Amino acid sequence: MAKARVHNFHVSLDGYSAGETITFEKPMGGAEGMFARFDGRAIDGVDAVDDPITLDRALASTWAQGIGAEIMGRSKFGPQTGEWTDDEWRGWWGDAPPFRTPVVVLTHHRRDPLHFDNGTSFHFLDATPADALAYAQDLAGGRDIRVGGGPSTVRQFLAADLIDFMHLITVPVTLGAGVSMWDGLAGVQDRFTVESVSSASGLVHHFWNRTTADRA
Amino acid sequence: MAKARVHNFHVSLDGYSAGETITFEKPMGGAEGMFARFDGRAIDGVDAVDDPITLDRALASTWAQGIGAEIMGRSKFGPQTGEWTDDEWRGWWGDAPPFRTPVVVLTHHRRDPLHFDNGTSFHFLDATPADALAYAQDLAGGRDIRVGGGPSTVRQFLAADLIDFMHLITVPVTLGAGVSMWDGLAGVQDRFTVESVSSASGLVHHFWNRTTADRA
Repeated sequence: MAKARVHNFHVSLDGYSAGETITFEKPMGGAEGMFARFDGRAIDGVDAVDDPITLDRALASTWAQGIGAEIMGRSKFGPQTGEWTDDEWRGWWGDAPPFRTPVVVLTHHRRDPLHFDNGTSFHFLDATPADALAYAQDLAGGRDIRVGGGPSTVRQFLAADLIDFMHLITVPVTLGAGVSMWDGLAGVQDRFTVESVSSASGLVHHFWNRTTADRA
Repeated sequence: MAKARVHNFHVSLDGYSAGETITFEKPMGGAEGMFARFDGRAIDGVDAVDDPITLDRALASTWAQGIGAEIMGRSKFGPQTGEWTDDEWRGWWGDAPPFRTPVVVLTHHRRDPLHFDNGTSFHFLDATPADALAYAQDLAGGRDIRVGGGPSTVRQFLAADLIDFMHLITVPVTLGAGVSMWDGLAGVQDRFTVESVSSASGLVHHFWNRTTADRA
Protein backbone atom coordinates (compact mmCIF):
# COMPACT_ATOMS: atom_id res chain seq x y z
CA MET A 1 0.00 0.00 0.00
CA ALA A 2 1.18 3.54 -0.73
CA LYS A 3 2.86 5.09 2.31
CA ALA A 4 2.95 8.59 3.77
CA ARG A 5 6.68 9.26 4.29
CA VAL A 6 8.80 11.98 5.88
CA HIS A 7 12.39 12.28 4.60
CA ASN A 8 15.60 14.05 5.59
CA PHE A 9 13.91 15.84 8.44
CA HIS A 10 16.55 17.67 10.45
CA VAL A 11 16.10 18.07 14.20
CA SER A 12 18.47 19.97 16.48
CA LEU A 13 19.61 18.49 19.79
CA ASP A 14 17.03 20.68 21.53
CA GLY A 15 14.22 19.47 19.30
CA TYR A 16 13.76 22.24 16.74
CA SER A 17 13.39 21.70 13.01
CA ALA A 18 13.18 25.31 11.84
CA GLY A 19 13.75 28.82 13.12
CA GLU A 20 10.96 30.95 14.52
CA THR A 21 10.19 33.37 11.70
CA ILE A 22 10.51 32.63 7.99
CA THR A 23 11.57 35.62 5.89
CA PHE A 24 12.69 36.07 2.30
CA GLU A 25 16.26 36.27 3.57
CA LYS A 26 15.95 33.34 5.96
CA PRO A 27 13.89 30.53 4.43
CA MET A 28 14.58 28.37 7.50
CA GLY A 29 13.86 31.18 9.95
CA GLY A 30 17.46 31.46 11.10
CA ALA A 31 18.04 27.71 11.42
CA GLU A 32 19.94 27.55 8.14
CA GLY A 33 23.14 26.65 10.01
CA MET A 34 21.55 23.33 10.92
CA PHE A 35 21.93 22.23 7.32
CA ALA A 36 25.56 23.22 6.90
CA ARG A 37 26.71 19.65 7.56
CA PHE A 38 24.42 18.28 4.95
CA ASP A 39 24.66 18.52 1.20
CA GLY A 40 21.13 19.11 -0.01
CA ARG A 41 22.10 18.32 -3.57
CA ALA A 42 22.01 14.67 -2.62
CA ILE A 43 18.21 14.73 -2.85
CA ASP A 44 18.66 14.64 -6.61
CA GLY A 45 20.11 11.13 -6.27
CA VAL A 46 23.47 9.51 -5.70
CA ASP A 47 24.27 9.84 -9.40
CA ALA A 48 23.81 13.60 -9.46
CA VAL A 49 26.77 14.58 -7.29
CA ASP A 50 30.40 14.45 -8.27
CA ASP A 51 31.24 14.31 -4.57
CA PRO A 52 31.76 10.99 -2.78
CA ILE A 53 28.66 8.89 -2.14
CA THR A 54 28.69 8.93 1.64
CA LEU A 55 26.30 7.27 4.05
CA ASP A 56 24.58 10.65 4.50
CA ARG A 57 24.09 11.16 0.77
CA ALA A 58 23.02 7.57 0.12
CA LEU A 59 20.30 7.86 2.75
CA ALA A 60 19.23 11.34 1.64
CA SER A 61 18.76 10.04 -1.87
CA THR A 62 15.80 7.88 -0.84
CA TRP A 63 13.86 11.17 -0.68
CA ALA A 64 12.34 10.89 -4.16
CA GLN A 65 12.09 7.12 -4.55
CA GLY A 66 8.58 6.08 -5.44
CA ILE A 67 7.11 9.43 -4.43
CA GLY A 68 4.08 10.53 -6.44
CA ALA A 69 3.18 13.74 -4.59
CA GLU A 70 4.30 15.95 -1.72
CA ILE A 71 2.28 17.78 0.93
CA MET A 72 3.82 20.91 2.43
CA GLY A 73 2.79 23.71 4.76
CA ARG A 74 2.45 27.21 3.37
CA SER A 75 5.59 28.51 5.07
CA LYS A 76 7.70 25.93 3.23
CA PHE A 77 6.36 27.41 -0.01
CA GLY A 78 6.98 31.03 0.94
CA PRO A 79 7.14 33.61 3.75
CA GLN A 80 3.82 35.31 2.94
CA THR A 81 0.81 35.10 5.27
CA GLY A 82 -2.87 35.94 4.74
CA GLU A 83 -4.46 36.43 1.34
CA TRP A 84 -2.22 35.87 -1.69
CA THR A 85 -1.36 39.33 -2.96
CA ASP A 86 1.76 38.58 -4.93
CA ASP A 87 0.90 35.93 -7.47
CA GLU A 88 4.35 36.37 -8.97
CA TRP A 89 5.73 34.29 -6.07
CA ARG A 90 6.25 30.76 -7.39
CA GLY A 91 8.19 29.32 -4.43
CA TRP A 92 11.85 29.40 -3.42
CA TRP A 93 13.08 27.10 -6.13
CA GLY A 94 13.20 29.05 -9.41
CA ASP A 95 12.12 27.51 -12.70
CA ALA A 96 12.91 23.92 -11.76
CA PRO A 97 11.65 23.02 -8.27
CA PRO A 98 13.26 19.74 -7.17
CA PHE A 99 9.94 17.95 -6.53
CA ARG A 100 9.06 16.89 -10.08
CA THR A 101 5.61 15.75 -8.88
CA PRO A 102 2.39 17.48 -7.83
CA VAL A 103 2.80 19.31 -4.49
CA VAL A 104 -0.17 20.12 -2.24
CA VAL A 105 0.38 23.39 -0.36
CA LEU A 106 -1.79 23.68 2.75
CA THR A 107 -3.23 27.19 3.08
CA HIS A 108 -6.49 28.75 4.16
CA HIS A 109 -6.31 31.10 1.20
CA ARG A 110 -7.16 29.85 -2.25
CA ARG A 111 -4.97 30.33 -5.27
CA ASP A 112 -4.86 28.78 -8.73
CA PRO A 113 -2.40 25.91 -9.31
CA LEU A 114 1.08 26.54 -10.67
CA HIS A 115 2.74 24.27 -13.22
CA PHE A 116 6.43 23.91 -14.11
CA ASP A 117 8.04 22.25 -17.11
CA ASN A 118 9.91 19.67 -15.01
CA GLY A 119 6.75 17.98 -13.73
CA THR A 120 6.38 20.00 -10.55
CA SER A 121 2.98 21.58 -9.87
CA PHE A 122 1.64 23.35 -6.77
CA HIS A 123 -1.97 22.87 -5.70
CA PHE A 124 -3.23 25.17 -2.92
CA LEU A 125 -5.65 23.47 -0.55
CA ASP A 126 -7.51 24.30 2.66
CA ALA A 127 -8.05 20.89 4.26
CA THR A 128 -7.47 18.68 7.29
CA PRO A 129 -4.43 16.41 7.22
CA ALA A 130 -6.60 13.38 6.40
CA ASP A 131 -8.36 15.17 3.54
CA ALA A 132 -5.10 16.59 2.24
CA LEU A 133 -3.62 13.08 2.22
CA ALA A 134 -6.57 11.73 0.25
CA TYR A 135 -6.26 14.65 -2.18
CA ALA A 136 -2.54 14.03 -2.63
CA GLN A 137 -3.12 10.31 -3.14
CA ASP A 138 -5.45 11.12 -6.02
CA LEU A 139 -2.59 13.07 -7.62
CA ALA A 140 0.09 10.46 -6.89
CA GLY A 141 -0.89 7.65 -9.25
CA GLY A 142 -0.49 4.95 -6.63
CA ARG A 143 2.94 6.08 -5.52
CA ASP A 144 3.88 7.19 -2.01
CA ILE A 145 3.18 10.62 -0.50
CA ARG A 146 5.99 12.64 1.02
CA VAL A 147 4.93 14.87 3.90
CA GLY A 148 7.57 17.49 3.30
CA GLY A 149 7.23 19.84 6.26
CA GLY A 150 7.73 22.26 7.79
CA PRO A 151 7.71 20.87 11.31
CA SER A 152 4.23 22.14 12.17
CA THR A 153 2.83 20.24 9.21
CA VAL A 154 4.68 17.03 10.11
CA ARG A 155 3.45 17.37 13.70
CA GLN A 156 -0.16 17.68 12.57
CA PHE A 157 0.15 14.53 10.45
CA LEU A 158 1.81 12.66 13.32
CA ALA A 159 -0.91 13.78 15.74
CA ALA A 160 -3.50 12.43 13.29
CA ASP A 161 -1.52 9.15 13.05
CA LEU A 162 -1.14 9.50 9.29
CA ILE A 163 2.64 8.97 8.97
CA ASP A 164 3.94 5.51 7.98
CA PHE A 165 7.68 6.24 7.80
CA MET A 166 10.08 8.97 8.91
CA HIS A 167 13.76 9.46 8.18
CA LEU A 168 14.77 11.95 10.88
CA ILE A 169 18.29 13.31 11.19
CA THR A 170 19.60 14.52 14.52
CA VAL A 171 22.04 17.37 13.91
CA PRO A 172 24.60 18.06 16.66
CA VAL A 173 23.65 21.73 17.11
CA THR A 174 21.48 23.59 19.61
CA LEU A 175 19.23 26.36 18.33
CA GLY A 176 17.72 27.63 21.58
CA ALA A 177 14.48 28.64 19.87
CA GLY A 178 12.48 27.74 16.80
CA VAL A 179 9.65 25.54 15.62
CA SER A 180 9.58 22.35 17.65
CA MET A 181 9.50 18.94 16.07
CA TRP A 182 7.98 17.34 19.16
CA ASP A 183 5.49 19.72 20.84
CA GLY A 184 2.31 17.88 21.73
CA LEU A 185 3.63 14.52 20.61
CA ALA A 186 4.67 12.93 23.92
CA GLY A 187 4.71 9.15 23.49
CA VAL A 188 4.51 9.24 19.70
CA GLN A 189 7.43 6.78 19.53
CA ASP A 190 5.13 4.06 20.90
CA ARG A 191 3.49 3.76 17.50
CA PHE A 192 6.81 3.15 15.72
CA THR A 193 9.84 0.93 15.69
CA VAL A 194 12.94 3.13 15.59
CA GLU A 195 16.33 2.16 14.18
CA SER A 196 19.20 4.64 14.52
CA VAL A 197 22.65 4.88 13.01
CA SER A 198 25.39 7.44 13.43
CA SER A 199 27.45 8.87 10.60
CA ALA A 200 31.07 9.96 10.52
CA SER A 201 29.76 13.48 9.81
CA GLY A 202 28.21 13.72 13.28
CA LEU A 203 24.67 13.27 12.02
CA VAL A 204 22.49 10.50 13.45
CA HIS A 205 19.89 8.99 11.12
CA HIS A 206 16.68 7.59 12.56
CA PHE A 207 14.27 5.32 10.70
CA TRP A 208 10.78 5.35 12.16
CA ASN A 209 8.49 2.66 10.80
CA ARG A 210 4.89 2.62 11.93
CA THR A 211 4.11 -0.64 13.73
CA THR A 212 0.34 -0.60 13.90
CA ALA A 213 -1.24 -2.38 10.97
CA ASP A 214 -4.07 0.06 10.33
CA ARG A 215 -4.29 3.76 10.64
CA ALA A 216 -6.19 5.13 13.66
CA MET B 1 30.84 12.65 -14.90
CA ALA B 2 29.08 9.31 -15.14
CA LYS B 3 30.44 6.82 -12.62
CA ALA B 4 31.11 3.09 -12.67
CA ARG B 5 29.42 1.79 -9.52
CA VAL B 6 29.21 -1.52 -7.65
CA HIS B 7 26.16 -1.97 -5.40
CA ASN B 8 24.98 -4.35 -2.69
CA PHE B 9 27.99 -6.56 -3.11
CA HIS B 10 27.96 -9.19 -0.36
CA VAL B 11 31.25 -10.46 1.04
CA SER B 12 31.58 -13.20 3.67
CA LEU B 13 33.90 -12.78 6.65
CA ASP B 14 36.42 -14.95 4.84
CA GLY B 15 36.29 -12.85 1.70
CA TYR B 16 34.03 -14.78 -0.66
CA SER B 17 31.22 -13.28 -2.71
CA ALA B 18 29.86 -16.40 -4.39
CA GLY B 19 30.11 -20.16 -4.15
CA GLU B 20 32.48 -22.18 -6.29
CA THR B 21 30.22 -23.66 -8.95
CA ILE B 22 27.11 -22.06 -10.37
CA THR B 23 24.36 -24.53 -11.29
CA PHE B 24 20.71 -24.20 -12.27
CA GLU B 25 19.81 -25.23 -8.72
CA LYS B 26 22.36 -22.97 -7.04
CA PRO B 27 22.62 -19.60 -8.81
CA MET B 28 25.07 -18.40 -6.17
CA GLY B 29 27.11 -21.62 -6.26
CA GLY B 30 26.08 -22.68 -2.76
CA ALA B 31 26.54 -19.24 -1.18
CA GLU B 32 22.80 -18.54 -1.22
CA GLY B 33 22.73 -18.56 2.58
CA MET B 34 24.82 -15.39 2.57
CA PHE B 35 21.79 -13.48 1.34
CA ALA B 36 19.34 -14.81 3.89
CA ARG B 37 19.74 -11.73 6.09
CA PHE B 38 19.05 -9.44 3.20
CA ASP B 39 15.78 -8.78 1.48
CA GLY B 40 16.59 -8.62 -2.20
CA ARG B 41 13.25 -7.05 -2.97
CA ALA B 42 14.63 -3.79 -1.64
CA ILE B 43 16.47 -3.27 -4.91
CA ASP B 44 13.14 -2.27 -6.40
CA GLY B 45 13.13 0.80 -4.15
CA VAL B 46 11.99 1.75 -0.70
CA ASP B 47 8.46 2.26 -1.97
CA ALA B 48 8.15 -1.24 -3.35
CA VAL B 49 8.16 -3.14 -0.07
CA ASP B 50 5.39 -3.29 2.49
CA ASP B 51 8.04 -4.20 5.08
CA PRO B 52 9.70 -1.55 7.24
CA ILE B 53 12.21 0.73 5.53
CA THR B 54 15.30 -0.26 7.46
CA LEU B 55 18.83 1.06 7.11
CA ASP B 56 19.67 -2.05 5.07
CA ARG B 57 16.78 -1.53 2.66
CA ALA B 58 17.33 2.22 2.35
CA LEU B 59 20.95 1.65 1.35
CA ALA B 60 20.12 -1.25 -0.97
CA SER B 61 17.66 0.95 -2.79
CA THR B 62 20.41 3.16 -4.19
CA TRP B 63 21.14 0.23 -6.53
CA ALA B 64 19.13 1.60 -9.47
CA GLN B 65 19.47 5.34 -8.92
CA GLY B 66 20.78 7.03 -12.01
CA ILE B 67 21.94 3.77 -13.57
CA GLY B 68 21.78 3.64 -17.36
CA ALA B 69 23.35 0.22 -18.00
CA GLU B 70 24.80 -2.78 -16.17
CA ILE B 71 27.83 -4.91 -16.98
CA MET B 72 27.79 -8.50 -15.74
CA GLY B 73 29.89 -11.63 -16.13
CA ARG B 74 28.43 -14.57 -17.96
CA SER B 75 27.94 -16.68 -14.85
CA LYS B 76 25.64 -14.04 -13.39
CA PHE B 77 23.49 -14.45 -16.49
CA GLY B 78 23.41 -18.25 -16.42
CA PRO B 79 25.28 -21.45 -15.51
CA GLN B 80 26.18 -22.43 -19.10
CA THR B 81 29.76 -22.41 -20.36
CA GLY B 82 31.22 -22.54 -23.90
CA GLU B 83 29.19 -21.94 -27.04
CA TRP B 84 25.56 -20.96 -26.56
CA THR B 85 23.56 -24.09 -27.33
CA ASP B 86 20.32 -23.31 -25.60
CA ASP B 87 19.08 -19.99 -26.89
CA GLU B 88 15.91 -20.50 -24.88
CA TRP B 89 17.83 -19.41 -21.77
CA ARG B 90 16.96 -15.77 -21.11
CA GLY B 91 18.54 -15.39 -17.66
CA TRP B 92 17.38 -16.26 -14.15
CA TRP B 93 14.78 -13.54 -13.91
CA GLY B 94 11.75 -14.58 -15.97
CA ASP B 95 9.84 -12.12 -18.12
CA ALA B 96 10.69 -9.02 -16.10
CA PRO B 97 14.40 -8.87 -15.17
CA PRO B 98 14.89 -6.24 -12.45
CA PHE B 99 17.48 -4.24 -14.41
CA ARG B 100 15.17 -2.18 -16.67
CA THR B 101 18.20 -0.94 -18.62
CA PRO B 102 20.57 -2.41 -21.21
CA VAL B 103 22.84 -5.08 -19.66
CA VAL B 104 26.21 -6.01 -21.18
CA VAL B 105 27.00 -9.71 -20.60
CA LEU B 106 30.71 -10.46 -20.92
CA THR B 107 31.27 -13.71 -22.82
CA HIS B 108 33.73 -15.04 -25.37
CA HIS B 109 30.84 -16.56 -27.30
CA ARG B 110 28.63 -14.37 -29.41
CA ARG B 111 24.88 -14.36 -29.25
CA ASP B 112 22.18 -12.02 -30.50
CA PRO B 113 20.77 -9.46 -28.04
CA LEU B 114 17.65 -10.19 -25.99
CA HIS B 115 14.98 -7.59 -25.34
CA PHE B 116 12.28 -7.52 -22.65
CA ASP B 117 9.14 -5.39 -22.39
CA ASN B 118 10.23 -3.72 -19.14
CA GLY B 119 13.24 -1.98 -20.69
CA THR B 120 15.80 -4.68 -19.91
CA SER B 121 17.98 -5.90 -22.76
CA PHE B 122 21.01 -8.21 -22.76
CA HIS B 123 23.95 -7.54 -25.11
CA PHE B 124 26.61 -10.26 -25.33
CA LEU B 125 30.11 -8.91 -25.72
CA ASP B 126 33.68 -10.26 -25.86
CA ALA B 127 35.77 -7.32 -24.65
CA THR B 128 38.26 -6.07 -22.10
CA PRO B 129 36.88 -4.28 -19.03
CA ALA B 130 37.80 -0.86 -20.51
CA ASP B 131 36.15 -1.62 -23.83
CA ALA B 132 33.10 -3.09 -22.12
CA LEU B 133 32.77 0.06 -20.03
CA ALA B 134 32.93 2.27 -23.13
CA TYR B 135 30.34 0.05 -24.82
CA ALA B 136 28.04 0.25 -21.80
CA GLN B 137 28.46 4.02 -21.61
CA ASP B 138 27.23 4.30 -25.19
CA LEU B 139 24.09 2.44 -24.11
CA ALA B 140 23.59 4.38 -20.87
CA GLY B 141 22.56 7.81 -22.15
CA GLY B 142 24.90 9.70 -19.84
CA ARG B 143 23.78 7.84 -16.72
CA ASP B 144 26.03 5.76 -14.47
CA ILE B 145 27.17 2.19 -15.15
CA ARG B 146 26.61 -0.53 -12.57
CA VAL B 147 29.27 -3.25 -12.57
CA GLY B 148 26.94 -5.96 -11.34
CA GLY B 149 29.21 -8.94 -10.71
CA GLY B 150 29.91 -11.71 -10.15
CA PRO B 151 33.02 -11.26 -8.04
CA SER B 152 35.45 -12.22 -10.82
CA THR B 153 34.04 -9.46 -12.98
CA VAL B 154 34.23 -6.87 -10.21
CA ARG B 155 37.82 -7.94 -9.50
CA GLN B 156 38.79 -7.44 -13.14
CA PHE B 157 37.33 -3.94 -13.16
CA LEU B 158 39.05 -3.11 -9.87
CA ALA B 159 42.37 -4.42 -11.20
CA ALA B 160 41.95 -2.14 -14.23
CA ASP B 161 41.14 0.78 -11.89
CA LEU B 162 37.77 1.36 -13.54
CA ILE B 163 35.54 1.43 -10.45
CA ASP B 164 34.50 4.82 -8.99
CA PHE B 165 32.21 3.66 -6.18
CA MET B 166 31.43 0.43 -4.32
CA HIS B 167 28.77 -0.36 -1.76
CA LEU B 168 30.09 -3.57 -0.18
CA ILE B 169 28.23 -5.44 2.53
CA THR B 170 30.10 -7.63 4.99
CA VAL B 171 27.87 -10.53 5.99
CA PRO B 172 28.65 -12.26 9.30
CA VAL B 173 29.00 -15.75 7.82
CA THR B 174 31.99 -17.88 6.84
CA LEU B 175 31.77 -19.90 3.62
CA GLY B 176 35.12 -21.72 3.68
CA ALA B 177 35.31 -21.80 -0.11
CA GLY B 178 34.01 -19.91 -3.08
CA VAL B 179 34.88 -17.10 -5.47
CA SER B 180 37.04 -14.55 -3.70
CA MET B 181 36.25 -10.86 -3.71
CA TRP B 182 39.86 -9.92 -3.00
CA ASP B 183 42.28 -12.29 -4.82
CA GLY B 184 45.02 -10.32 -6.53
CA LEU B 185 43.85 -6.99 -5.15
CA ALA B 186 46.23 -6.45 -2.23
CA GLY B 187 46.38 -2.72 -1.46
CA VAL B 188 43.34 -1.83 -3.56
CA GLN B 189 41.98 0.18 -0.61
CA ASP B 190 44.75 2.76 -1.13
CA ARG B 191 42.86 4.13 -4.14
CA PHE B 192 39.67 4.72 -2.14
CA THR B 193 38.30 6.44 0.92
CA VAL B 194 36.23 3.94 2.88
CA GLU B 195 33.34 4.75 5.22
CA SER B 196 31.71 1.88 7.15
CA VAL B 197 28.55 1.58 9.19
CA SER B 198 27.04 -1.37 11.03
CA SER B 199 23.39 -2.29 10.94
CA ALA B 200 21.21 -3.82 13.63
CA SER B 201 20.84 -6.82 11.29
CA GLY B 202 24.51 -7.75 11.70
CA LEU B 203 25.46 -6.49 8.24
CA VAL B 204 28.22 -3.90 7.86
CA HIS B 205 27.92 -1.51 4.92
CA HIS B 206 31.07 -0.09 3.34
CA PHE B 207 31.16 2.89 0.98
CA TRP B 208 34.26 2.98 -1.17
CA ASN B 209 34.76 6.22 -3.09
CA ARG B 210 37.66 6.46 -5.48
CA THR B 211 40.05 9.20 -4.39
CA THR B 212 42.25 9.62 -7.43
CA ALA B 213 40.97 12.29 -9.78
CA ASP B 214 41.64 10.50 -13.05
CA ARG B 215 41.51 6.89 -14.02
CA ALA B 216 44.85 5.09 -14.41
